[in-house]
Amino acid sequence: MARGLRVAVVGAAGLVGREILAIMEERGFPIGQLIALATERSAGDEIELEGERVQVRKADAGSFAGVELVLMAAGPAASRELTPAAVAQGAVVIDTSSAWRMDPDVPLVIPEVNAADIAAFDKKSIISSPSAATIQLLVAVAPLHREAVAKRIVVATYEAVSRRGQGGMDELGAEVTALFGQREFEPKVFPKRVAFNAVPQVGAFLPDGFTREESRLVEESRKILHVPELRMCATCVHVPVFNGHAESVVVEFDKPMSAERARQLLREAPGIMLKDDPATADYPTPIDAEGTDATYVGRLRDDPSAANSLAFWCVADNVRKGAAANTVQIAEIWARDHG
Amino acid sequence: MARGLRVAVVGAAGLVGREILAIMEERGFPIGQLIALATERSAGDEIELEGERVQVRKADAGSFAGVELVLMAAGPAASRELTPAAVAQGAVVIDTSSAWRMDPDVPLVIPEVNAADIAAFDKKSIISSPSAATIQLLVAVAPLHREAVAKRIVVATYEAVSRRGQGGMDELGAEVTALFGQREFEPKVFPKRVAFNAVPQVGAFLPDGFTREESRLVEESRKILHVPELRMCATCVHVPVFNGHAESVVVEFDKPMSAERARQLLREAPGIMLKDDPATADYPTPIDAEGTDATYVGRLRDDPSAANSLAFWCVADNVRKGAAANTVQIAEIWARDHG
Repeated sequence: MARGLRVAVVGAAGLVGREILAIMEERGFPIGQLIALATERSAGDEIELEGERVQVRKADAGSFAGVELVLMAAGPAASRELTPAAVAQGAVVIDTSSAWRMDPDVPLVIPEVNAADIAAFDKKSIISSPSAATIQLLVAVAPLHREAVAKRIVVATYEAVSRRGQGGMDELGAEVTALFGQREFEPKVFPKRVAFNAVPQVGAFLPDGFTREESRLVEESRKILHVPELRMCATCVHVPVFNGHAESVVVEFDKPMSAERARQLLREAPGIMLKDDPATADYPTPIDAEGTDATYVGRLRDDPSAANSLAFWCVADNVRKGAAANTVQIAEIWARDHG
Repeated sequence: MARGLRVAVVGAAGLVGREILAIMEERGFPIGQLIALATERSAGDEIELEGERVQVRKADAGSFAGVELVLMAAGPAASRELTPAAVAQGAVVIDTSSAWRMDPDVPLVIPEVNAADIAAFDKKSIISSPSAATIQLLVAVAPLHREAVAKRIVVATYEAVSRRGQGGMDELGAEVTALFGQREFEPKVFPKRVAFNAVPQVGAFLPDGFTREESRLVEESRKILHVPELRMCATCVHVPVFNGHAESVVVEFDKPMSAERARQLLREAPGIMLKDDPATADYPTPIDAEGTDATYVGRLRDDPSAANSLAFWCVADNVRKGAAANTVQIAEIWARDHG
């Protein structure tokens, strides 16, 4: 991948888009020409790109002429509108949104877990990056699942407000400030007050009583692990954390998987930082993961409540590994093998 | 229970002690004489009692002469020291701390769940109130467990800083203020920064990798439900919430227990406020429970990942129902039947 690619980033002024640009720069992604695009809302904003101020242009169907790779970080509505146009003009799109994830002709990829699936990008010229909650769960589960098949996963999430971008972070900050000043505050981004609270609704409710985020965690996990019969129960909760999702996870395997064995496997697994020593009270918290691309795992313990069951806790920066870094990692592999 | 009892409250100046005094007043507990006691730390403080300022005296072994009922809310060390002295002087002690909970001769009681166990108070003249996380879990599980036996519970908690009393609340407030002012802050009450973070350690670590709080949830649940073989896996996490614990719960029963049937049972169960309507995004959050004595239950759904499995979310004010109110409820039943 020596030659520079013509790359467009859609949503370049947003929280994830800016991280995508920063990570491409950090990792020396081979860019020939870079086009920074945005939806109506932030078109005209200026961003810094390799030390220079660049104006973000409004993306439309005509924005992608000659573009080889599009990194799409502008939400599902924008992706549904712009991705077909980009593909029609010959680009490959790597999308961070939910728009194409469950399309059977679109690979849904976590490089540490199912990088080989990228090869199927050519069916639709689209590759999807999973939701942040799925990525950190599977980066942790996959190395264990390769040795003992995961049969059932029960997960409860502690999700950061950056899931909803800068607007989510601004709302938490404004709520805290309002509360400390004893002023009223009407939530706009989240369904209820998230400051000093825990809100068990991430996304809309579905007919079965689960939320969209909970359902996604299950469906994306099945697709990525290639285990359509994987049994899962998720509860997704917003907590007043600016950045970094955490998850309490219990996995039942088809054969024994002790905490000790899991530690051995995870210590050598890609993308994992094991932080797990009860003797020194070492375990990860969301602020430990901030600004990094690793999934941090700790609190590994044998779950005595079921056969072959393992409990653990994992944490990752949902803006970086949960979106931007995962997307750039996919782009690197695609560029190396197919670009 | 017409006649007024001579009652001592130990820890009267603390967060739970003050709530005990307030709840006794609210509910018209039959007090003849009330003695407000405290440990060294807050002896000398003044509290308000039925509109009058009362000085809190230091509790010692001689404080309980003529006292019939002691409500002990000063932590396990004080309870281990003072409870035997109070009992030796003829008092019955209802203790909010962990000191006596697992003593086989001490009933561990949630009035909505196992009020009949109070009758065994005379073995040691001590009755224990469970930990807050256990109380709200079992107020919700017990009405279901009466119809279908609970075989396995997986629970992840979202625990408020008021678990550690006023000091815990002050630390969260000070941390937030320090962070917003970009100043350093060294946590003292919690093992790590809890502001805008999630800390998966509540209590010390045990040899099996679980924490004391996680182990308590399991052992207390088994004792209260009289199911020593109940299988449980708990993950206990501090979140930046001032008051009100929340729990994500998955229960497997020995026969079917649909979300619909659970709603019917919980709607009529004592101590429960059902707040569960996905169509209107109605579910409880910690701030909804504040200042109340109910356990709020919502997010009830059939868990498709295991047979006869039900998922739900529950919330309660950990200082009130989780400690003070539960203790006063026990005291009322004891006074009515045995006082």
